[in-house]
Amino acid sequence: MDGFTSPYTTGNRVRRMIWTICWNTLARPFPKSTLMAWKRLLLRMFGAKIADTAYVYATAKVFMPWHLEMKEHSCLASGVDCYNAAPVTIGENATVSQRCYLCTASHDIASADHRQTEQPITIGDRAWVAAEAFIGPGVSIGDGAVIGARAVVVRDVEPWTVVGGNPAKFLKKRIINH
Amino acid sequence: MDGFTSPYTTGNRVRRMIWTICWNTLARPFPKSTLMAWKRLLLRMFGAKIADTAYVYATAKVFMPWHLEMKEHSCLASGVDCYNAAPVTIGENATVSQRCYLCTASHDIASADHRQTEQPITIGDRAWVAAEAFIGPGVSIGDGAVIGARAVVVRDVEPWTVVGGNPAKFLKKRIINH
Amino acid sequence: MDGFTSPYTTGNRVRRMIWTICWNTLARPFPKSTLMAWKRLLLRMFGAKIADTAYVYATAKVFMPWHLEMKEHSCLASGVDCYNAAPVTIGENATVSQRCYLCTASHDIASADHRQTEQPITIGDRAWVAAEAFIGPGVSIGDGAVIGARAVVVRDVEPWTVVGGNPAKFLKKRIINH
Repeated sequence: MDGFTSPYTTGNRVRRMIWTICWNTLARPFPKSTLMAWKRLLLRMFGAKIADTAYVYATAKVFMPWHLEMKEHSCLASGVDCYNAAPVTIGENATVSQRCYLCTASHDIASADHRQTEQPITIGDRAWVAAEAFIGPGVSIGDGAVIGARAVVVRDVEPWTVVGGNPAKFLKKRIINH
Repeated sequence: MDGFTSPYTTGNRVRRMIWTICWNTLARPFPKSTLMAWKRLLLRMFGAKIADTAYVYATAKVFMPWHLEMKEHSCLASGVDCYNAAPVTIGENATVSQRCYLCTASHDIASADHRQTEQPITIGDRAWVAAEAFIGPGVSIGDGAVIGARAVVVRDVEPWTVVGGNPAKFLKKRIINH
Repeated sequence: MDGFTSPYTTGNRVRRMIWTICWNTLARPFPKSTLMAWKRLLLRMFGAKIADTAYVYATAKVFMPWHLEMKEHSCLASGVDCYNAAPVTIGENATVSQRCYLCTASHDIASADHRQTEQPITIGDRAWVAAEAFIGPGVSIGDGAVIGARAVVVRDVEPWTVVGGNPAKFLKKRIINH
């Protein structure tokens, strides 16, 4: 989804370049979730809406922080690629595990110029996106849903269900024992 | 597919070592598609056949440049692993998106010594291999075909079709609106 | 599977931190399988049981070396993530190819606190786990089995069978020609 002529304005590209340099030099050197308050501050300075208890690990990559909203106790783990050309929202107590790919951009394969398209991703409260899963453009993941490791999700996922596979399929309902 | 005793000659290994050092020091420091003319020159010096309008991003990895042919307006995006132990050909206007794996090598699992095998990969004109897809040894992707993100392709793909999943399956025909 | 409150004791975390620093500074700079005797020594100093002919490539990542056992002529290739929160055993002549993920940890999705769970992984003699495959917690891979590239394995695999896909399914029996 890289291209030759950028679908972004020059202003957008400059802002992202500055953001990337800032994160890589000022946040990424502090491993994992160390100095989280400082990392949150950096994200907020670039427009992200980050709850005081949200976590973004050092090696997570955020494409456009001004398109990121993270609610209380949510988490983007190590190596997550949050490619938020469109808004990405992470619900309360939701976890996106290591090396997941949240991919909001695609291309219109029916257009002659193969133009870029963008759609938001929403991850519900208490959802868990397990390691190395892929979430595609426009996908909404319901509250409490579990996305299995390496699952590839291109359709919405019902609340309190467990899905897995490529493409991801319904596996079972999620029931919490109290 | 790493092994203990290399299936390559010493000459081949030395040539690849020099290539890797050159790319990593002389091309990779210039991010994305900056200095593309210079990057093309480097690839050509090591035997690649690269059209003047082809793009190879800084973090793309080419195993044996002398086994790479890229036609006009083709692209290997960021993080692509072009493991071309056998020839890889990228057609005109074809795009291989970020972190795809073009894997030409395997092992003969019926042989007692598990020996390495190599088969070429061909990607047709106007094809799009979307993010993080895997293309296996010997695969030929037809003109205009679309390989979905994270798809795993081990058989040939018909022209102007869309495939996805692991293993990749036919999803629909691709029709361009004019 | 990163979390906010570590499921590990402080002692465990310190030991892992020292291990990671040692590997990254003393072993990882020597590419691929160079200085293997030295790399084996380092792993053993941190409790790994490593046969004299086993290979761990420079960019392979071992989470807890004291939970790793590698038998004769076994191999963890470049970029493998051996996330061995529980024991991982690699059989004789077994190969784990580039960028595979051996993942022993998960979370109990039926518990209110989403607590971490850990189960061992065992890879049999002469098995081959091909590139970028994922092996989940508790999985036992039989002798001589072949796991296809990018396969996602969450159940045991029978000896001398070939599996592939996400989720991985039986494809055929493996027969060696003599």
